[in-house]
Amino acid sequence: MSAFPLPPGSTIGILGGGQLGRMLALAAARLGFDTVILTPEPDACASRVATRSIVAAYDDAVALEALSLVAGVATFEFENVPALVVEQLQALKVEVAPGPRALAVAQDRVDEKTFLNGCGAATVAFVAIDKAEDIGPALDRLGAPALLKTRREGYDGKGQTWVESHADAAAAFARLGGKPSILEARADFRREVSVIAARGRDGEIAAYPIGENHHENGVLRRTRAPAHVSAETQIQAETIAARILNGLDYVGVMGVELFELADGRLLVNEIAPRVHNSGHWTLDGCEVDQFEQHIRAVAGWPLGPTTALARVEMENLLGEEIDAWPALAAEPNARVWHYGKGEARPGRKMGHVNRLSGL
Amino acid sequence: MSAFPLPPGSTIGILGGGQLGRMLALAAARLGFDTVILTPEPDACASRVATRSIVAAYDDAVALEALSLVAGVATFEFENVPALVVEQLQALKVEVAPGPRALAVAQDRVDEKTFLNGCGAATVAFVAIDKAEDIGPALDRLGAPALLKTRREGYDGKGQTWVESHADAAAAFARLGGKPSILEARADFRREVSVIAARGRDGEIAAYPIGENHHENGVLRRTRAPAHVSAETQIQAETIAARILNGLDYVGVMGVELFELADGRLLVNEIAPRVHNSGHWTLDGCEVDQFEQHIRAVAGWPLGPTTALARVEMENLLGEEIDAWPALAAEPNARVWHYGKGEARPGRKMGHVNRLSGL
Repeated sequence: MSAFPLPPGSTIGILGGGQLGRMLALAAARLGFDTVILTPEPDACASRVATRSIVAAYDDAVALEALSLVAGVATFEFENVPALVVEQLQALKVEVAPGPRALAVAQDRVDEKTFLNGCGAATVAFVAIDKAEDIGPALDRLGAPALLKTRREGYDGKGQTWVESHADAAAAFARLGGKPSILEARADFRREVSVIAARGRDGEIAAYPIGENHHENGVLRRTRAPAHVSAETQIQAETIAARILNGLDYVGVMGVELFELADGRLLVNEIAPRVHNSGHWTLDGCEVDQFEQHIRAVAGWPLGPTTALARVEMENLLGEEIDAWPALAAEPNARVWHYGKGEARPGRKMGHVNRLSGL
Repeated sequence: MSAFPLPPGSTIGILGGGQLGRMLALAAARLGFDTVILTPEPDACASRVATRSIVAAYDDAVALEALSLVAGVATFEFENVPALVVEQLQALKVEVAPGPRALAVAQDRVDEKTFLNGCGAATVAFVAIDKAEDIGPALDRLGAPALLKTRREGYDGKGQTWVESHADAAAAFARLGGKPSILEARADFRREVSVIAARGRDGEIAAYPIGENHHENGVLRRTRAPAHVSAETQIQAETIAARILNGLDYVGVMGVELFELADGRLLVNEIAPRVHNSGHWTLDGCEVDQFEQHIRAVAGWPLGPTTALARVEMENLLGEEIDAWPALAAEPNARVWHYGKGEARPGRKMGHVNRLSGL
């Protein structure tokens, strides 16, 4: 096991080769760390900026051993890392952060909401659904329409469907492939917001100002941050984040997606045990961005300041929208981030732009 | 030849594998560029963050051809790139920026000062010295003491010596190895300052606020920027920079070191046709730092804003000073940049810290 704080010159292992891994690698480099990316993709965009890459399946034993020989600590850019992989890395004496408990909780929507409610972070009411027949009684309890989601592996609006009425129950269950699911009460929310928070190895917690999120077709379109919220709302979000982070004995950055209700209460929609798309505004809005913050946390460094230095509107550039880069590069207060991905497939996250204005 | 603006996904070739190359590669990655580093060092710190590396001598014909096959444009992190290398790359249809004229001028102190005076950028008086016997008459003209420097290849205070009197002339010439030299009049300056300026492919020019520099043993110790100077002084510096950049039909970022005299006049000490140590403050003090600005310029993108968002004190971390990283990481408004170099040899530039405060 490594000694913390991990000194510059050490290597940080990152599972996953997408844009989050790329921006983590860039942040690690600023602090003097080498990086090794484990990804099944031969030409991943994170690998193009990392010191080394291992191209293999995440559960490839030889690859994990190779990673363990160089990495002082391992982390990941996506939450569906198999629990087995984390166990294998730990057996190879590699510290993994965030730990297996955070992964397990984030991988199963029923476990996630059960944990959240247990640590004092409110969510919508929900019922676990194992078979189509469970939906009827659940609908009676939660009211219709209600949102049916697979317990595992949904993201960006995939793996979910509305159940409009009792008559729709069997069809809805079939639409999701008949998998173990969760039925969630509809949240009557005013806004979707999120808070990006970090917890260090010493238990120190730091949260960024709340961002306000707008989705299109289940995919994040833009985040405005700091959002115009009251100090009470910011404190409420930070309290929720702290309960979750402490409850999981978490190390690293977490994205906490929240519903803001009409009465001002915040409900947790879901948590992402990693850096988060709605935190990309910090790249240009804060002294220490979420990527460096995550590296600091997992490396056992003190956390950095989370104060906003500017107001930022972050807009995702999906598919061909990236072709607007020449115009964006000429906008005086726009900062373009291009992920260096090859093909601009429809809906693919190719980059983002941060538009800055005064606080 | 490449078409400009160079699109993201293109590769930028960088000659040199040190910290300047490393920070150029990180900036290029943010904009979606791949990078290829050409360096004779097998484990260069820039290579650790670049997409690819070619380990070979700068004038290795095979290496230059390999670079030409991938690079849409080539640039360099140090000014002593042999002119032959630039010619070879151009023969291979690779655009090199800055161009050969800037290199030639910056590589020879007599040519440099002659060019500077010719384009209206004042310097101290000087005389070219080919043999020891030239020093006496030159000293009569310039006054004693005067500074004797080799015409080529000095940096960080190396390759220079004071000539105290006529009696010292022969010994001084011998101290520098009897090489072709330049004798410079002593500048009676109040402060050493510098301006980092960029020129785009379309001739657009942008200059950052002046920084005030403090040297120790000929090596930059710290830069404070924006320096407390009058608006007139800032305009004077920008005018000088613009004359130089236009005079060289320059593309890229240049560091212009200046002496501020008691009467407020600025004399050019020397120019560096590359990103410059005294511009590291822009990494945390400006929206677009000097490294991204250089990449933008050589890639034919529009230049970014150069306004300071904070006041910064940049301090170089030399040799073992880098061992202070744990304390620096805990300083709330300090941003540590660690270059990921292996051995902390005495005086080696291992990293720097930017301490931020309000404007």
